[in-house]
Amino acid sequence: MKISTIAVIMAMADEAKPFIEALGLKRAVSAFDSRLPMEVYTGAVEKAEIVLVVGGKDRRFGVDNVGTQPATLSAYLAIETFKPDLIINAGTAGGFKSKGADIGDVYIGSDSIRFHDRRIPIPGFSAYGVGSYRTPDVDAVATALGLKKGVVSTGNSLDMLPEDRLMIQSNQGVVKEMEAAAIAWVAELYQIPMVALKSITDLVDTDTPTQDEFLKNLNLASETLQEKLTAAVDFFAGSDTPLPGDASPAL
Amino acid sequence: MKISTIAVIMAMADEAKPFIEALGLKRAVSAFDSRLPMEVYTGAVEKAEIVLVVGGKDRRFGVDNVGTQPATLSAYLAIETFKPDLIINAGTAGGFKSKGADIGDVYIGSDSIRFHDRRIPIPGFSAYGVGSYRTPDVDAVATALGLKKGVVSTGNSLDMLPEDRLMIQSNQGVVKEMEAAAIAWVAELYQIPMVALKSITDLVDTDTPTQDEFLKNLNLASETLQEKLTAAVDFFAGSDTPLPGDASPAL
Repeated sequence: MKISTIAVIMAMADEAKPFIEALGLKRAVSAFDSRLPMEVYTGAVEKAEIVLVVGGKDRRFGVDNVGTQPATLSAYLAIETFKPDLIINAGTAGGFKSKGADIGDVYIGSDSIRFHDRRIPIPGFSAYGVGSYRTPDVDAVATALGLKKGVVSTGNSLDMLPEDRLMIQSNQGVVKEMEAAAIAWVAELYQIPMVALKSITDLVDTDTPTQDEFLKNLNLASETLQEKLTAAVDFFAGSDTPLPGDASPAL
Repeated sequence: MKISTIAVIMAMADEAKPFIEALGLKRAVSAFDSRLPMEVYTGAVEKAEIVLVVGGKDRRFGVDNVGTQPATLSAYLAIETFKPDLIINAGTAGGFKSKGADIGDVYIGSDSIRFHDRRIPIPGFSAYGVGSYRTPDVDAVATALGLKKGVVSTGNSLDMLPEDRLMIQSNQGVVKEMEAAAIAWVAELYQIPMVALKSITDLVDTDTPTQDEFLKNLNLASETLQEKLTAAVDFFAGSDTPLPGDASPAL
C-alpha cells in the first residue's frame, strides 16, 4: 500500500497560514458539522491528497483552540472523514537549550510521544497517563530533511512547573508542546502512523518567559515549519505503508 | 421542548456498573466504530431514552480511559450518534474538607465548570484555558435530590500540585475531578445543557494520599452516585428545555 492521503493537524491559524499558502490549499467549509470550530483545507501534491485540519477559534474567547481536547477531536474528525494513510501533527513548540535546541530548529518526534501532565499514581494508570505512543522510524526523513529527532512531550500548559520538568526528563523529552500525544492516542486507536513535526519558538530552560519568546518567534518558526512540513509531505506522499518501526505500539 | 433523550457519560467501568444494573441498561455493541474503546449502553426510564457512554479500557494498559481526551471523544460521539437533549457527566471526584465535603457526598456542578491545569499566560488564552463552561441552574434538582452544589474543576492528574490548588481556589472550585470540563466544552459547542454529578471518594486537602482513599471508597461512592444519578435522570426526563440558567454561556 502507498500513502495516498495525508492528514495534517495544526492548532493555530498563524502556524497553518504559510503551509496553506505554499500548497495553495482551499477551504472546505462543509467538511464537518457547522457547530464545530475546526477549519478544513484540502489540496494535493504530486503523489497524495492533502487535508489540513486547523483547530479554529474558540467562540467565546476568540483565541485558537490549542491543547489536547480540540486536538483529540481534530484527529478523530480527520480520520473518520478523510481516512488518511498518515497523520502529521505540525506546530510550534518549546525546546531545551541543554539538549542542543535553538530557536527555529524543526524536530521530528522519534521513539514515542508522551504526556507530562497526567499524573495518576494508581497501579496501571501511571503508565497510561504517560501514554508513550510509538512513532514510526523517522531516521530516513530526518536525514533527508535535516530534522532533529527526539521524544515529543505534551501537556495542556504553556508554562513548565518543576513537576512537569521532572516528568519531561523522565520521559526523555526534548520537545515540549500541547497537542501531539492527544493526536497520537487517536491515531493509535485507528492504527494509523502519526508523525510530529515541531518548530522551536522558545527555549523553556532559559530565563526568558516562554510566552514572550513564543509571541516574538511564532511567525519565524511557522515559516521554518512550513518549509519542513512541505518537504515532509513530499517525502511521505506515495511511499509505502506501514512505515518502518510502526508495527506494534511500545509498552 | 421536553427532554426525551439523556446521554450519561462516565469514565470508569466500576463507576458505571451500579447504574447499568439499576436501570437494566443493555450493551449496544455496534453503536460506534469498533476501533474505538468506548462502551455504549441503552435503555429507558418512563419519560426518556437513556444512553450511557463509558470510556472503556485502554488496549495497551488495560485500565479505564480516564481524563479529558477520552471524555472529549465520548461526548462528541454521544452527541453525534444520539442527539441528546441533556448530557449528564457522572463520576467520582475529590472533595475539600475545608469546604465541608465528606466521603460519599454527591455534588452537582453549579455556576460553571473549569479547568485547573491549562495555564496559558498569553492575553486571551488564560481565560480560554480555564474555560468556565456555564452550567444550567441546578437549584431545583439539588434541593429535590439533596445534592451539594459547587464549581467542578477538571485536570488530567489525580494528585494536586500547589499550582493546581491555587488555580482551583481561584476558580472557586469545590470538586476536583478529571473529565467534566472537557465534556462541557463539547456540550457548549452543540449548545446542549450539561450537568455534572460527582460523588466524593477522597478529601484532597487532608493527609491521606488521594490514591489510597480513592481505591478504598470507589465502590461506596459509585453506589451513592448511582442512587443520585438514577434520581437525577428521573428528575430531568420529560422536563422542559432549555433548562433555566442555560441561555447563554458565561464570559
